[in-house]
Amino acid sequence: MRQRHKPWADDFIKENSHIVIPNADENKGKWQTLFQNDQPIHLEIGTGKGQFIAGMAKQHPEINFIGIEVVKSVIVSAVQKVLDEELKNVFLLNINAKDVRDIFAENEITTIYLNFSDPWPKNRHEKRRLTYHTFLEQYKHILHPDGEIILKTDNQGFFEYSLVSFSQFGMKLEEVSLDLHALNDPLNVMTEYEEKFSKKGQRIYRCKARF
Amino acid sequence: MRQRHKPWADDFIKENSHIVIPNADENKGKWQTLFQNDQPIHLEIGTGKGQFIAGMAKQHPEINFIGIEVVKSVIVSAVQKVLDEELKNVFLLNINAKDVRDIFAENEITTIYLNFSDPWPKNRHEKRRLTYHTFLEQYKHILHPDGEIILKTDNQGFFEYSLVSFSQFGMKLEEVSLDLHALNDPLNVMTEYEEKFSKKGQRIYRCKARF
Repeated sequence: MRQRHKPWADDFIKENSHIVIPNADENKGKWQTLFQNDQPIHLEIGTGKGQFIAGMAKQHPEINFIGIEVVKSVIVSAVQKVLDEELKNVFLLNINAKDVRDIFAENEITTIYLNFSDPWPKNRHEKRRLTYHTFLEQYKHILHPDGEIILKTDNQGFFEYSLVSFSQFGMKLEEVSLDLHALNDPLNVMTEYEEKFSKKGQRIYRCKARF
Repeated sequence: MRQRHKPWADDFIKENSHIVIPNADENKGKWQTLFQNDQPIHLEIGTGKGQFIAGMAKQHPEINFIGIEVVKSVIVSAVQKVLDEELKNVFLLNINAKDVRDIFAENEITTIYLNFSDPWPKNRHEKRRLTYHTFLEQYKHILHPDGEIILKTDNQGFFEYSLVSFSQFGMKLEEVSLDLHALNDPLNVMTEYEEKFSKKGQRIYRCKARF
């Protein structure tokens, strides 16, 4: 996603440090304390402009949401949505999620969303795919034993790869949908990508998997 | 598949008892003896008119193939193909495969093909789907520990169901293809259904799974 440079992004992020939490690793194991409640925490890796996390947070006030997004010029749109909707159950992290175990304690998360992650289609980039086994090892650590990963993508190759990768890791598939929007699920909150690709008539794939 | 009644089918099947083996259960554990070699045995459940099994047997003389098909007026076409191609590595069984453990001993099969099985789309018919867990239990028994199930279908719902059913049973997915014919695999042998649906531009799904 190529984005215009936004010179004001840095300041805007700093001004909203009650939403974009700095020094995320210092809150490891204490996220519920920061949310000031004991609600379950759902994590989105790659939050983009925040349409999904804001929509979910609005639909589910009984859940806390944390979204990770490395690109400053993109995360600012997510911040704006959280401000506009006055959401109290969303934190954003402007970091590169190299190892989520640095930020979350064992079992601290109950659901992980991987929405339209970069498919890294070349074989030599397999290690960068967010469903590569080294990432699954991280997710397993921070995810509650009853927790699940929910993946959505329009990329056929990435979806095929992810199903096999989950399975080879010993995870169990709970649900597979090969044409999500044909289901007309009114509770499905769309990401920006999803809305765009779906309008073009492309299939959206979704699966849910547990360790 | 509605088929014309073929009054001669019974006699034709009996005349070709060197291909359509009667009293299949008597050969349990002795199929290689009947083939007169020690080649691995691949099993197709629901052989239909035999295009797949005949094509595979021709392509793989180093493998023995057994095809099960309950409908007499359909299996005769498969018999004819085996005769025409003078295939020595194919046996057919004109039975209802209610429990393959009656016909095959533990570990006697190395690959099971489920090609375009009846999807039984209604929930109340779930138990009839050939990937329901009671069938998987049977397959696990007759399949060699290194063996695999290879499933092909054009039916999205049945494919989604089967992926989850395999996974919930503890099986591991080795391969998932959500658009088989886009791969242009010259070694893929098509069934009659596959050829028909593929020409209509429908996607063909395939997966490979191990216990």
